Amino acid sequence: MDQRELSEAVRILLKEPDSLIPAIAQDHLSGKVLMLAWMNQESLAITLQTKKATYWSRSRNELWVKGSTSGHFQLIKELWLDCDGDALVLSVEQIGSACHTGKDSCFHQNLLELSQ
Amino acid sequence: MDQRELSEAVRILLKEPDSLIPAIAQDHLSGKVLMLAWMNQESLAITLQTKKATYWSRSRNELWVKGSTSGHFQLIKELWLDCDGDALVLSVEQIGSACHTGKDSCFHQNLLELSQ
Repeated sequence: MDQRELSEAVRILLKEPDSLIPAIAQDHLSGKVLMLAWMNQESLAITLQTKKATYWSRSRNELWVKGSTSGHFQLIKELWLDCDGDALVLSVEQIGSACHTGKDSCFHQNLLELSQ
Repeated sequence: MDQRELSEAVRILLKEPDSLIPAIAQDHLSGKVLMLAWMNQESLAITLQTKKATYWSRSRNELWVKGSTSGHFQLIKELWLDCDGDALVLSVEQIGSACHTGKDSCFHQNLLELSQ
């Protein structure tokens, strides 16, 4: 099977196979949520085959192997689809930092504090 | 300030204040990712004020206080916005189960296993 083609067993579970799906990357050891990005069928297929997180970049409109420029790859340990087939959790070993700011997680703006 | 109005300090951090934002609910103790839902400005404002997760239901097109029917509320412990202002993590105390199937998390379809 072509590396870019999703298996039928997986494809039928997707609510909208032709839409972008939010994909949550979570550190497999600490449980920290690292980032949220987007996948299409092709990037999901590649991720499942290569075990390296591969997203669809909405800004560049192209496949994005996380770490291909920075070296900060995400190695897939587990990959879960939710009950209604429209969101993903990637349990990953994060090489280097997930966030382009150098922080370990992209989620570092504390809204409870800011809204007080 | 109206409970449904977002503070300016928070609003200016949102990349697209008038768009729906994916919101990840995570158990504050176990770190388990429970579900992904969506927020608009109003639901985020209410969540920050009431400390109960309130989403925007895309299927019903209305505000959705998680637990208002089931009693399975999500009490907010922390709430984080990501670096580019277009995704949220809610660290919550989950009352009952997050998923309508009765499981503790909505993410229970193992795609690595299925795609082998």
